[in-house]
Amino acid sequence: MKKILVLNSGSSTLKYQLFQVEGEKYNVVAKGNAERINRDASFVSVKFNGNSKDVSVELKSHKDALEAILKILLDGIIGNLDEISAIGQRIVQGGAYFKSSALATEENIKKVEDLAVLAPLHNGPAALVIRAVKEVLPQIRQVLVFDTSFHQTMPYEAYTYALPEELIEKHQIRRYGFHGTSHMYVSQQACKLVGEKSKVITCHIGSGASITAVKDGQCVDTSMGMTPLAGIVMDTRCGDIDPYIPVYLMKMEGYSADEINDLMNKQSGKSGLTGYSDSRDFEAAYERGEEKVVKAMQVYIYNIVKYIGSYTAAMGGLDALVFTAGVGENSSLVRKLVLEKLAYLGIEIDNEKNSQRGFVNEISKVGSKVRAFVIPTDEELVIAMETVRLA
Amino acid sequence: MKKILVLNSGSSTLKYQLFQVEGEKYNVVAKGNAERINRDASFVSVKFNGNSKDVSVELKSHKDALEAILKILLDGIIGNLDEISAIGQRIVQGGAYFKSSALATEENIKKVEDLAVLAPLHNGPAALVIRAVKEVLPQIRQVLVFDTSFHQTMPYEAYTYALPEELIEKHQIRRYGFHGTSHMYVSQQACKLVGEKSKVITCHIGSGASITAVKDGQCVDTSMGMTPLAGIVMDTRCGDIDPYIPVYLMKMEGYSADEINDLMNKQSGKSGLTGYSDSRDFEAAYERGEEKVVKAMQVYIYNIVKYIGSYTAAMGGLDALVFTAGVGENSSLVRKLVLEKLAYLGIEIDNEKNSQRGFVNEISKVGSKVRAFVIPTDEELVIAMETVRLA
Repeated sequence: MKKILVLNSGSSTLKYQLFQVEGEKYNVVAKGNAERINRDASFVSVKFNGNSKDVSVELKSHKDALEAILKILLDGIIGNLDEISAIGQRIVQGGAYFKSSALATEENIKKVEDLAVLAPLHNGPAALVIRAVKEVLPQIRQVLVFDTSFHQTMPYEAYTYALPEELIEKHQIRRYGFHGTSHMYVSQQACKLVGEKSKVITCHIGSGASITAVKDGQCVDTSMGMTPLAGIVMDTRCGDIDPYIPVYLMKMEGYSADEINDLMNKQSGKSGLTGYSDSRDFEAAYERGEEKVVKAMQVYIYNIVKYIGSYTAAMGGLDALVFTAGVGENSSLVRKLVLEKLAYLGIEIDNEKNSQRGFVNEISKVGSKVRAFVIPTDEELVIAMETVRLA
Repeated sequence: MKKILVLNSGSSTLKYQLFQVEGEKYNVVAKGNAERINRDASFVSVKFNGNSKDVSVELKSHKDALEAILKILLDGIIGNLDEISAIGQRIVQGGAYFKSSALATEENIKKVEDLAVLAPLHNGPAALVIRAVKEVLPQIRQVLVFDTSFHQTMPYEAYTYALPEELIEKHQIRRYGFHGTSHMYVSQQACKLVGEKSKVITCHIGSGASITAVKDGQCVDTSMGMTPLAGIVMDTRCGDIDPYIPVYLMKMEGYSADEINDLMNKQSGKSGLTGYSDSRDFEAAYERGEEKVVKAMQVYIYNIVKYIGSYTAAMGGLDALVFTAGVGENSSLVRKLVLEKLAYLGIEIDNEKNSQRGFVNEISKVGSKVRAFVIPTDEELVIAMETVRLA
């Protein structure tokens, strides 16, 4: 029996989950969030034994946030810090270097810092937290788990953008893909159900969303790109658009690079078309028949369906389709709208099963040529599992 | 028997073809190019009766170019200008306004001028030429044939980018699609072969390239976007990339909007990856086994295959696949590499037929579930036909 702390850092946040591990069983003991790091009114939230609270505390740095989290854990959740046997860190960008999870050696930490140029809002803070752990808990093993590493098996034709070669090399421009821990986990679960040598498409659809083609257990393509902006339409991200459009808007509206990036990432997607950024509000408006939302839902579904078709072609067929993450697990409506468009592949939806939620569930009819599943994901859980595996 | 003059204007060029029409038969009598308009060393080329020549002439404007072309035609090709019964003008951007070819009324010319904001290098010069024709040949009927109009039947979900609604409206941001005359023509030919109620994908693959989904004779989606930059990898255009990449390169390299646009349109694609911008040179290097070219060919083919898969999903199946334009008509290699990846759809290639060229040809085996064709296209011919139909 051991405890694993999973850390997930953003530019002004540090999320944590403490797992208790017994054999194959992972239970979340406590979790929460350090928020507003280096801003006023910073605090740490904690959920433990069914209770939630926010603790106001000055957080000048990610190191302060780490120390505040450890203090809260010591306040009745764990007896001493030695109970934590290892720490798992989520790292957004592992570049072409990290092909799997890795221990936080000095060399690897430096590499995470170097890769911050590709993910400044994420890798920078993550590196700060890794170094803070080294100071505060020098003996503990840290495991770095990358959003990108599962996608490192993509072949050249899937990760290459046809831009001038020297620029590609200079700026490390390529498709990296994200949500890798989730795609890895649910595709592995799917392979247990349909066989190791299978063609599987995993749809991780949450507020961010990506679709991945997994052949014989290996990622062969994924819809997010060099950044998490590309791919299908998301809650607030535009996904794929004509690459001239951002340039055109900068020219016509005088936007800076940061402003257009913000616009494409935070003011676009379903929200940009309808004003609804939360997928539950969006779906409720769809059920009420709000015209803009009905049309935006068509865009959303159409995007997903086209990617599934495209990856079916990429793999030369399809054995199983997996839905996961917030929308993928909880919206029977979105799944139904997608699956109805895929009848040509030989997917037959089981409407009764599709209306259920909360567990691994085969939602296609028995005998369906292509099988469809809901497989709940849990990125923190996968990070904890990777940490146990490596630490 | 009548003669139709087809004009195709660029920023410093004016291409022309003179057709002789007898019933359903269209013969090219003469053709050529006015080049370097408003630059030094301008000239007009002409091909007539198997001979070619360049005539040096000062061309200060597109009107000068028109007059020089007419003068050359009068020099032994036609007896007088009355022999030209109508003029067809190629217009790149018809916006959401022109849903089919149209006569050059004052209202329509103004609309072409308004739409120049979306295609400054093309619509501006085209409008100048239309107005020049009105001055020089006031009695003649002019027909405007748009690259975009065939794609106007796309549904909302296919033409909409998920950007903030007010920006979409203000800047007319949407997928327009291009090569419409070609996709229209070859899809109509295909429908004659496989039936009006069919699911057809047309691959117009030349130095520019686009793929279109045509259901029951109507365009339902196309790979080019708001501009001809989007879609599959082309000779010098990058096609779809993460929309953050141009913004990132502007930020990192200090490029202006025009510089990054130039880079994505003229220095990318197969050329950017390999240095070969001409598809024949590219294919020769592939046959020699040059490593970069072999890899870039994989990217190229993979792009095409993914679009075909995506549009198969969009239409819920596929009856026929059509190849056209320079590469599509002439490269048995590209067709073979694409078709081999589509075996899962039930396409069986007939290698003997695929090695032929120059005529409408079914290149899939008899009994193939999805049929594949080569159908030669000719955009000038389609413009001439549209001109006869409307004038």
